Amino acid sequence: MAGKIVVYGGKGALGSVVVKHFKELNYWVGSIDLVNVDDANISIAVNKNEDCDTQASAVMKQLSEALADGSKLDAFINVAGGWAGGNAASDGLISSSVLMWQQSVWSSVITAQAAAKFLKPGGLVVLPGAHPALAGTPGMIGYGMAKAAVHQLTQSLAGPGSGLPDNATALAILPVTLNTPMNRKWMSKADFSTWTPLDFVAKTFEAWVKNEQRPASGSLVQLITKDNVTQLKIE
Amino acid sequence: MAGKIVVYGGKGALGSVVVKHFKELNYWVGSIDLVNVDDANISIAVNKNEDCDTQASAVMKQLSEALADGSKLDAFINVAGGWAGGNAASDGLISSSVLMWQQSVWSSVITAQAAAKFLKPGGLVVLPGAHPALAGTPGMIGYGMAKAAVHQLTQSLAGPGSGLPDNATALAILPVTLNTPMNRKWMSKADFSTWTPLDFVAKTFEAWVKNEQRPASGSLVQLITKDNVTQLKIE
Repeated sequence: MAGKIVVYGGKGALGSVVVKHFKELNYWVGSIDLVNVDDANISIAVNKNEDCDTQASAVMKQLSEALADGSKLDAFINVAGGWAGGNAASDGLISSSVLMWQQSVWSSVITAQAAAKFLKPGGLVVLPGAHPALAGTPGMIGYGMAKAAVHQLTQSLAGPGSGLPDNATALAILPVTLNTPMNRKWMSKADFSTWTPLDFVAKTFEAWVKNEQRPASGSLVQLITKDNVTQLKIE
Repeated sequence: MAGKIVVYGGKGALGSVVVKHFKELNYWVGSIDLVNVDDANISIAVNKNEDCDTQASAVMKQLSEALADGSKLDAFINVAGGWAGGNAASDGLISSSVLMWQQSVWSSVITAQAAAKFLKPGGLVVLPGAHPALAGTPGMIGYGMAKAAVHQLTQSLAGPGSGLPDNATALAILPVTLNTPMNRKWMSKADFSTWTPLDFVAKTFEAWVKNEQRPASGSLVQLITKDNVTQLKIE
Protein backbone atom coordinates (compact mmCIF):
# COMPACT_ATOMS: atom_id res chain seq x y z
CA MET A 1 0.00 0.00 0.00
CA ALA A 2 1.37 3.38 -1.06
CA GLY A 3 -0.36 5.34 1.71
CA LYS A 4 -3.74 6.41 3.00
CA ILE A 5 -5.87 9.34 1.92
CA VAL A 6 -9.44 10.50 2.41
CA VAL A 7 -11.39 12.33 -0.31
CA TYR A 8 -14.29 14.51 0.84
CA GLY A 9 -16.72 14.65 -2.07
CA GLY A 10 -15.57 11.28 -3.46
CA LYS A 11 -18.73 10.84 -5.53
CA GLY A 12 -18.47 14.21 -7.32
CA ALA A 13 -17.06 14.78 -10.79
CA LEU A 14 -13.59 15.70 -9.54
CA GLY A 15 -13.73 13.53 -6.42
CA SER A 16 -14.48 10.33 -8.31
CA VAL A 17 -11.51 10.96 -10.62
CA VAL A 18 -9.29 11.56 -7.58
CA VAL A 19 -10.52 8.37 -5.87
CA LYS A 20 -9.85 6.33 -9.02
CA HIS A 21 -6.42 7.92 -9.54
CA PHE A 22 -5.17 7.13 -6.04
CA LYS A 23 -6.69 3.64 -6.09
CA GLU A 24 -4.68 2.92 -9.24
CA LEU A 25 -1.57 4.15 -7.41
CA ASN A 26 -2.30 1.54 -4.74
CA TYR A 27 -3.40 3.97 -2.03
CA TRP A 28 -5.96 3.11 0.62
CA VAL A 29 -8.71 5.62 -0.17
CA GLY A 30 -11.58 6.67 2.07
CA SER A 31 -14.53 8.65 0.74
CA ILE A 32 -16.91 11.03 2.46
CA ASP A 33 -19.95 12.20 0.50
CA LEU A 34 -23.72 12.30 0.65
CA VAL A 35 -23.78 8.84 -0.92
CA ASN A 36 -21.54 5.79 -0.80
CA VAL A 37 -18.62 5.28 -3.17
CA ASP A 38 -18.13 1.63 -4.02
CA ASP A 39 -14.52 1.97 -5.17
CA ALA A 40 -13.34 3.40 -1.87
CA ASN A 41 -11.76 1.31 0.89
CA ILE A 42 -14.13 2.95 3.33
CA SER A 43 -17.13 5.05 2.37
CA ILE A 44 -18.77 7.44 4.79
CA ALA A 45 -22.18 8.82 3.75
CA VAL A 46 -23.22 11.96 5.61
CA ASN A 47 -26.87 12.94 5.90
CA LYS A 48 -27.33 16.39 4.38
CA ASN A 49 -30.41 16.97 6.51
CA GLU A 50 -28.39 16.76 9.71
CA ASP A 51 -26.70 19.80 11.24
CA CYS A 52 -22.98 20.35 10.97
CA ASP A 53 -22.19 19.09 14.47
CA THR A 54 -24.06 15.82 13.86
CA GLN A 55 -22.39 15.31 10.47
CA ALA A 56 -19.00 15.97 12.05
CA SER A 57 -19.60 13.49 14.86
CA ALA A 58 -20.63 10.80 12.39
CA VAL A 59 -17.53 11.38 10.25
CA MET A 60 -15.18 11.38 13.26
CA LYS A 61 -16.69 8.17 14.63
CA GLN A 62 -16.40 6.30 11.34
CA LEU A 63 -12.86 7.52 10.72
CA SER A 64 -11.90 6.41 14.25
CA GLU A 65 -13.21 2.94 13.48
CA ALA A 66 -11.54 2.77 10.06
CA LEU A 67 -8.22 3.86 11.56
CA ALA A 68 -8.54 1.84 14.77
CA ASP A 69 -5.13 0.31 14.10
CA GLY A 70 -3.65 3.72 14.90
CA SER A 71 -2.60 4.45 11.34
CA LYS A 72 -2.72 8.02 10.12
CA LEU A 73 -3.59 9.68 6.81
CA ASP A 74 -1.13 11.07 4.28
CA ALA A 75 -3.71 13.50 2.97
CA PHE A 76 -7.19 14.80 3.45
CA ILE A 77 -8.47 16.15 0.12
CA ASN A 78 -11.76 18.05 0.14
CA VAL A 79 -13.27 18.60 -3.29
CA ALA A 80 -16.87 18.90 -2.10
CA GLY A 81 -19.12 21.84 -2.91
CA GLY A 82 -21.50 23.11 -5.52
CA TRP A 83 -22.42 26.33 -7.25
CA ALA A 84 -25.36 28.71 -6.99
CA GLY A 85 -25.96 32.12 -8.49
CA GLY A 86 -27.96 35.02 -7.13
CA ASN A 87 -27.44 38.68 -6.26
CA ALA A 88 -28.71 40.65 -3.26
CA ALA A 89 -32.09 41.21 -4.93
CA SER A 90 -32.64 37.51 -5.70
CA ASP A 91 -35.47 35.72 -3.94
CA GLY A 92 -33.16 32.78 -3.35
CA LEU A 93 -30.32 34.79 -1.79
CA ILE A 94 -30.72 33.39 1.70
CA SER A 95 -31.33 29.77 0.74
CA SER A 96 -28.46 29.70 -1.75
CA SER A 97 -26.11 31.26 0.80
CA VAL A 98 -27.05 28.64 3.37
CA LEU A 99 -26.62 25.83 0.83
CA MET A 100 -23.20 27.06 -0.32
CA TRP A 101 -22.06 27.31 3.29
CA GLN A 102 -23.24 23.76 4.01
CA GLN A 103 -21.54 22.31 0.96
CA SER A 104 -18.18 24.11 0.99
CA VAL A 105 -17.70 25.34 4.53
CA TRP A 106 -19.21 22.55 6.61
CA SER A 107 -17.18 20.01 4.65
CA SER A 108 -14.05 22.13 5.12
CA VAL A 109 -14.50 22.60 8.86
CA ILE A 110 -15.13 18.87 9.25
CA THR A 111 -11.99 18.27 7.15
CA ALA A 112 -10.01 20.56 9.47
CA GLN A 113 -11.27 18.74 12.55
CA ALA A 114 -10.56 15.32 11.07
CA ALA A 115 -7.11 16.41 9.88
CA ALA A 116 -6.23 17.64 13.38
CA LYS A 117 -6.92 14.13 14.66
CA PHE A 118 -6.07 11.73 11.86
CA LEU A 119 -3.42 13.36 9.65
CA LYS A 120 0.24 12.34 9.80
CA PRO A 121 2.86 14.88 10.76
CA GLY A 122 3.92 16.43 7.46
CA GLY A 123 0.60 15.45 5.88
CA LEU A 124 -1.50 17.38 3.39
CA VAL A 125 -4.90 19.08 3.62
CA VAL A 126 -6.52 20.40 0.43
CA LEU A 127 -9.64 22.59 0.55
CA PRO A 128 -12.07 23.61 -2.23
CA GLY A 129 -11.59 27.30 -3.06
CA ALA A 130 -12.60 29.18 -6.18
CA HIS A 131 -10.76 31.72 -8.32
CA PRO A 132 -13.69 34.16 -8.66
CA ALA A 133 -13.94 34.56 -4.86
CA LEU A 134 -10.56 36.33 -4.76
CA ALA A 135 -12.65 39.41 -5.65
CA GLY A 136 -16.31 40.32 -5.32
CA THR A 137 -18.87 38.03 -6.97
CA PRO A 138 -21.99 40.22 -7.26
CA GLY A 139 -23.96 37.69 -9.32
CA MET A 140 -23.20 34.73 -7.06
CA ILE A 141 -23.12 36.16 -3.56
CA GLY A 142 -23.57 33.01 -1.47
CA TYR A 143 -21.00 31.09 -3.49
CA GLY A 144 -18.39 33.83 -3.15
CA MET A 145 -18.82 34.16 0.61
CA ALA A 146 -18.46 30.43 1.19
CA LYS A 147 -15.35 30.17 -0.97
CA ALA A 148 -13.79 33.27 0.63
CA ALA A 149 -14.31 31.57 4.00
CA VAL A 150 -12.56 28.45 2.69
CA HIS A 151 -9.62 30.56 1.50
CA GLN A 152 -9.24 32.18 4.91
CA LEU A 153 -9.57 28.78 6.64
CA THR A 154 -6.67 27.55 4.52
CA GLN A 155 -4.56 30.45 5.78
CA SER A 156 -5.66 29.77 9.36
CA LEU A 157 -4.70 26.09 9.15
CA ALA A 158 -1.25 27.11 7.91
CA GLY A 159 -0.65 29.32 10.94
CA PRO A 160 1.10 28.45 14.21
CA GLY A 161 -1.17 26.77 16.73
CA SER A 162 -3.81 25.82 14.16
CA GLY A 163 -4.14 22.36 15.68
CA LEU A 164 -2.88 20.50 12.61
CA PRO A 165 -0.02 18.01 13.13
CA ASP A 166 3.54 19.30 12.92
CA ASN A 167 4.74 20.29 9.45
CA ALA A 168 1.37 19.66 7.85
CA THR A 169 0.59 21.61 4.68
CA ALA A 170 -2.79 23.25 4.06
CA LEU A 171 -3.61 24.33 0.51
CA ALA A 172 -6.70 25.46 -1.37
CA ILE A 173 -7.26 24.88 -5.06
CA LEU A 174 -8.92 27.77 -6.87
CA PRO A 175 -10.30 26.58 -10.20
CA VAL A 176 -11.88 28.95 -12.68
CA THR A 177 -13.97 26.27 -14.39
CA LEU A 178 -13.41 22.53 -14.12
CA ASN A 179 -14.08 20.41 -17.19
CA THR A 180 -16.89 18.34 -15.69
CA PRO A 181 -19.85 16.67 -17.43
CA MET A 182 -22.23 19.03 -15.60
CA ASN A 183 -20.38 22.15 -16.72
CA ARG A 184 -20.24 20.85 -20.30
CA LYS A 185 -23.99 20.25 -20.14
CA TRP A 186 -24.91 23.69 -18.76
CA MET A 187 -22.31 25.72 -20.65
CA SER A 188 -22.18 23.74 -23.86
CA LYS A 189 -21.15 26.74 -25.97
CA ALA A 190 -18.24 27.79 -23.76
CA ASP A 191 -14.59 27.62 -24.74
CA PHE A 192 -13.50 24.32 -23.20
CA SER A 193 -9.83 25.08 -23.91
CA THR A 194 -9.89 27.34 -20.81
CA TRP A 195 -11.41 24.69 -18.56
CA THR A 196 -9.18 22.64 -16.26
CA PRO A 197 -9.13 18.87 -16.93
CA LEU A 198 -9.92 16.71 -13.91
CA ASP A 199 -6.97 14.37 -14.46
CA PHE A 200 -4.59 17.32 -14.30
CA VAL A 201 -5.98 18.14 -10.86
CA ALA A 202 -5.67 14.51 -9.73
CA LYS A 203 -2.02 14.38 -10.89
CA THR A 204 -1.33 17.66 -9.09
CA PHE A 205 -2.74 16.14 -5.90
CA GLU A 206 -0.55 13.05 -6.45
CA ALA A 207 2.59 15.19 -6.57
CA TRP A 208 1.59 17.13 -3.47
CA VAL A 209 0.73 13.96 -1.53
CA LYS A 210 4.19 12.59 -2.42
CA ASN A 211 5.61 15.92 -1.19
CA GLU A 212 6.78 16.85 -4.67
CA GLN A 213 6.37 20.51 -5.75
CA ARG A 214 4.19 21.16 -2.75
CA PRO A 215 3.48 24.91 -2.41
CA ALA A 216 4.04 26.62 0.93
CA SER A 217 1.36 25.90 3.48
CA GLY A 218 -1.47 28.43 3.32
CA SER A 219 -1.14 28.92 -0.43
CA LEU A 220 -4.19 29.61 -2.55
CA VAL A 221 -3.36 27.71 -5.73
CA GLN A 222 -5.12 29.11 -8.79
CA LEU A 223 -5.65 26.69 -11.68
CA ILE A 224 -5.32 28.79 -14.82
CA THR A 225 -6.04 26.92 -18.06
CA LYS A 226 -5.33 28.44 -21.48
CA ASP A 227 -5.16 26.64 -24.83
CA ASN A 228 -5.73 23.37 -22.94
CA VAL A 229 -2.62 23.90 -20.79
CA THR A 230 -3.03 24.42 -17.04
CA GLN A 231 -0.61 26.39 -14.95
CA LEU A 232 -0.60 26.83 -11.20
CA LYS A 233 -0.55 30.40 -9.98
CA ILE A 234 0.28 30.52 -6.32
CA GLU A 235 -0.71 33.36 -3.98
CA MET B 1 -36.30 64.34 10.63
CA ALA B 2 -32.74 64.14 9.32
CA GLY B 3 -33.21 60.78 7.59
CA LYS B 4 -33.86 57.11 8.23
CA ILE B 5 -31.38 54.39 9.15
CA VAL B 6 -31.56 50.83 10.44
CA VAL B 7 -28.97 49.40 12.85
CA TYR B 8 -28.56 45.62 12.89
CA GLY B 9 -27.29 44.75 16.36
CA GLY B 10 -28.86 47.84 17.94
CA LYS B 11 -28.70 46.35 21.44
CA GLY B 12 -24.97 45.56 21.32
CA ALA B 13 -22.20 47.67 22.80
CA LEU B 14 -21.43 49.47 19.54
CA GLY B 15 -24.97 49.27 18.17
CA SER B 16 -26.55 50.98 21.17
CA VAL B 17 -24.05 53.85 20.87
CA VAL B 18 -24.87 54.15 17.17
CA VAL B 19 -28.63 54.13 17.82
CA LYS B 20 -28.25 56.85 20.49
CA HIS B 21 -25.94 58.94 18.27
CA PHE B 22 -28.33 59.01 15.32
CA LYS B 23 -31.37 59.56 17.55
CA GLU B 24 -29.65 62.68 18.92
CA LEU B 25 -29.08 63.81 15.34
CA ASN B 26 -32.84 63.55 14.81
CA TYR B 27 -32.75 60.46 12.58
CA TRP B 28 -35.53 57.90 12.47
CA VAL B 29 -33.71 54.78 13.69
CA GLY B 30 -34.82 51.19 13.36
CA SER B 31 -33.14 48.38 15.29
CA ILE B 32 -32.80 44.69 14.54
CA ASP B 33 -31.41 42.48 17.28
CA LEU B 34 -32.25 39.41 19.34
CA VAL B 35 -34.06 41.68 21.81
CA ASN B 36 -36.01 44.89 21.55
CA VAL B 37 -34.38 48.31 21.74
CA ASP B 38 -36.65 50.82 23.47
CA ASP B 39 -34.91 53.93 22.06
CA ALA B 40 -35.47 52.91 18.45
CA ASN B 41 -38.37 54.13 16.31
CA ILE B 42 -39.02 50.56 15.33
CA SER B 43 -37.48 47.53 16.96
CA ILE B 44 -37.37 44.14 15.29
CA ALA B 45 -36.43 41.18 17.51
CA VAL B 46 -35.28 38.11 15.59
CA ASN B 47 -35.47 34.66 17.14
CA LYS B 48 -32.00 33.15 17.22
CA ASN B 49 -33.46 29.64 17.26
CA GLU B 50 -35.04 30.15 13.84
CA ASP B 51 -33.18 29.39 10.62
CA CYS B 52 -31.77 32.13 8.43
CA ASP B 53 -34.63 32.07 5.92
CA THR B 54 -37.23 32.46 8.67
CA GLN B 55 -35.31 35.28 10.34
CA ALA B 56 -34.96 37.01 6.97
CA SER B 57 -38.68 36.74 6.23
CA ALA B 58 -39.57 38.21 9.63
CA VAL B 59 -37.19 41.13 9.14
CA MET B 60 -38.43 41.84 5.61
CA LYS B 61 -42.09 41.73 6.70
CA GLN B 62 -41.56 44.12 9.61
CA LEU B 63 -39.47 46.52 7.53
CA SER B 64 -42.18 46.51 4.85
CA GLU B 65 -44.74 47.48 7.47
CA ALA B 66 -42.51 50.15 9.02
CA LEU B 67 -41.81 51.67 5.60
CA ALA B 68 -45.34 51.21 4.24
CA ASP B 69 -45.40 54.91 3.30
CA GLY B 70 -42.86 54.08 0.59
CA SER B 71 -39.98 55.86 2.27
CA LYS B 72 -36.49 54.45 1.89
CA LEU B 73 -33.47 54.19 4.16
CA ASP B 74 -30.38 56.37 4.04
CA ALA B 75 -28.28 53.63 5.57
CA PHE B 76 -28.30 50.06 6.77
CA ILE B 77 -25.59 49.65 9.41
CA ASN B 78 -24.82 46.11 10.59
CA VAL B 79 -22.72 45.95 13.75
CA ALA B 80 -23.96 42.52 14.87
CA GLY B 81 -21.69 39.62 15.66
CA GLY B 82 -19.71 38.08 18.45
CA TRP B 83 -16.37 36.42 19.03
CA ALA B 84 -15.30 32.83 19.67
CA GLY B 85 -11.87 31.23 19.83
CA GLY B 86 -10.85 27.71 18.91
CA ASN B 87 -8.37 25.99 16.60
CA ALA B 88 -8.85 22.88 14.44
CA ALA B 89 -8.18 20.60 17.41
CA SER B 90 -10.74 22.27 19.67
CA ASP B 91 -13.79 20.29 20.71
CA GLY B 92 -15.92 23.35 20.04
CA LEU B 93 -14.63 24.00 16.51
CA ILE B 94 -17.85 23.07 14.76
CA SER B 95 -20.27 24.74 17.15
CA SER B 96 -18.23 27.96 17.31
CA SER B 97 -17.97 28.08 13.51
CA VAL B 98 -21.73 27.68 13.19
CA LEU B 99 -22.37 30.36 15.83
CA MET B 100 -19.99 32.86 14.20
CA TRP B 101 -21.65 32.27 10.84
CA GLN B 102 -25.09 32.83 12.33
CA GLN B 103 -24.09 36.04 14.10
CA SER B 104 -21.97 37.77 11.45
CA VAL B 105 -22.96 36.20 8.15
CA TRP B 106 -26.69 35.63 8.56
CA SER B 107 -27.09 39.21 9.76
CA SER B 108 -25.02 40.43 6.80
CA VAL B 109 -26.94 38.45 4.19
CA ILE B 110 -30.22 39.67 5.66
CA THR B 111 -28.78 43.20 5.57
CA ALA B 112 -27.91 42.74 1.89
CA GLN B 113 -31.40 41.50 1.07
CA ALA B 114 -33.07 44.33 3.02
CA ALA B 115 -30.76 46.94 1.46
CA ALA B 116 -31.65 45.71 -2.03
CA LYS B 117 -35.28 46.42 -1.25
CA PHE B 118 -35.34 49.33 1.18
CA LEU B 119 -32.20 51.42 0.62
CA LYS B 120 -32.28 54.76 -1.23
CA PRO B 121 -30.26 55.17 -4.41
CA GLY B 122 -26.90 56.47 -3.20
CA GLY B 123 -27.49 54.96 0.24
CA LEU B 124 -24.99 53.26 2.53
CA VAL B 125 -24.55 49.68 3.71
CA VAL B 126 -22.01 48.94 6.47
CA LEU B 127 -21.05 45.37 7.36
CA PRO B 128 -19.15 44.00 10.40
CA GLY B 129 -15.68 42.87 9.35
CA ALA B 130 -12.60 42.30 11.49
CA HIS B 131 -8.99 43.27 11.01
CA PRO B 132 -7.52 39.89 12.05
CA ALA B 133 -9.45 38.08 9.30
CA LEU B 134 -7.38 39.82 6.60
CA ALA B 135 -4.92 36.98 7.30
CA GLY B 136 -5.19 33.53 8.85
CA THR B 137 -6.58 33.28 12.38
CA PRO B 138 -5.38 29.86 13.59
CA GLY B 139 -6.59 30.34 17.16
CA MET B 140 -10.07 31.57 16.20
CA ILE B 141 -10.96 29.62 13.10
CA GLY B 142 -14.74 30.04 13.03
CA TYR B 143 -14.51 33.76 13.70
CA GLY B 144 -11.99 34.32 10.92
CA MET B 145 -14.02 32.41 8.33
CA ALA B 146 -17.20 34.33 9.09
CA LYS B 147 -15.46 37.70 8.95
CA ALA B 148 -13.63 36.80 5.71
CA ALA B 149 -17.02 35.97 4.22
CA VAL B 150 -18.33 39.37 5.32
CA HIS B 151 -15.34 41.07 3.68
CA GLN B 152 -15.97 39.29 0.40
CA LEU B 153 -19.71 40.07 0.60
CA THR B 154 -18.82 43.75 0.91
CA GLN B 155 -16.81 43.49 -2.31
CA SER B 156 -19.67 41.63 -4.00
CA LEU B 157 -22.20 44.28 -3.03
CA ALA B 158 -19.95 46.95 -4.54
CA GLY B 159 -19.84 45.20 -7.91
CA PRO B 160 -22.03 45.77 -10.96
CA GLY B 161 -25.31 43.88 -10.83
CA SER B 162 -25.15 43.24 -7.09
CA GLY B 163 -28.82 44.14 -6.69
CA LEU B 164 -28.20 47.20 -4.50
CA PRO B 165 -29.84 50.47 -5.61
CA ASP B 166 -27.92 52.72 -8.01
CA ASN B 167 -24.87 54.45 -6.56
CA ALA B 168 -25.17 52.72 -3.21
CA THR B 169 -21.97 52.33 -1.20
CA ALA B 170 -21.07 49.08 0.61
CA LEU B 171 -18.34 49.25 3.25
CA ALA B 172 -17.03 46.96 5.97
CA ILE B 173 -15.47 48.21 9.17
CA LEU B 174 -12.51 46.14 10.37
CA PRO B 175 -11.80 46.91 14.03
CA VAL B 176 -8.85 45.40 15.84
CA THR B 177 -10.41 45.74 19.30
CA LEU B 178 -13.37 47.93 20.19
CA ASN B 179 -13.39 49.61 23.59
CA THR B 180 -16.50 47.88 24.91
CA PRO B 181 -17.44 47.05 28.51
CA MET B 182 -17.19 43.32 27.70
CA ASN B 183 -13.69 43.63 26.26
CA ARG B 184 -12.59 45.73 29.26
CA LYS B 185 -13.96 43.03 31.55
CA TRP B 186 -12.29 40.09 29.79
CA MET B 187 -9.02 41.81 28.88
CA SER B 188 -8.68 44.10 31.90
CA LYS B 189 -4.88 44.22 31.69
CA ALA B 190 -4.71 45.13 28.00
CA ASP B 191 -3.47 48.45 26.64
CA PHE B 192 -6.71 50.36 26.13
CA SER B 193 -4.88 53.11 24.23
CA THR B 194 -4.94 50.80 21.17
CA TRP B 195 -8.67 50.10 21.43
CA THR B 196 -11.10 51.98 19.24
CA PRO B 197 -13.66 54.16 21.09
CA LEU B 198 -17.28 53.48 20.17
CA ASP B 199 -18.16 57.17 19.74
CA PHE B 200 -15.42 57.49 17.12
CA VAL B 201 -17.09 54.71 15.15
CA ALA B 202 -20.52 56.34 15.51
CA LYS B 203 -19.14 59.68 14.29
CA THR B 204 -17.47 57.93 11.35
CA PHE B 205 -20.83 56.40 10.42
CA GLU B 206 -22.44 59.83 10.71
CA ALA B 207 -20.02 61.29 8.17
CA TRP B 208 -20.51 58.39 5.80
CA VAL B 209 -24.32 58.55 6.06
CA LYS B 210 -24.11 62.28 5.21
CA ASN B 211 -21.91 61.29 2.26
CA GLU B 212 -18.88 63.04 3.73
CA GLN B 213 -15.49 61.32 3.40
CA ARG B 214 -17.21 58.15 2.26
CA PRO B 215 -14.62 55.61 1.03
CA ALA B 216 -15.10 53.95 -2.37
CA SER B 217 -17.74 51.25 -2.39
CA GLY B 218 -16.29 47.85 -1.57
CA SER B 219 -13.65 49.25 0.76
CA LEU B 220 -12.55 47.32 3.81
CA VAL B 221 -12.00 50.09 6.34
CA GLN B 222 -9.51 49.17 9.05
CA LEU B 223 -9.85 51.05 12.34
CA ILE B 224 -6.28 51.43 13.65
CA THR B 225 -6.03 53.01 17.10
CA LYS B 226 -2.68 54.07 18.60
CA ASP B 227 -2.11 56.35 21.60
CA ASN B 228 -5.89 56.82 21.77
CA VAL B 229 -6.05 58.20 18.22
CA THR B 230 -7.91 56.23 15.56
CA GLN B 231 -7.07 56.36 11.89
CA LEU B 232 -8.91 54.75 9.01
CA LYS B 233 -6.80 52.56 6.77
CA ILE B 234 -8.66 51.77 3.59
CA GLU B 235 -8.01 48.70 1.44
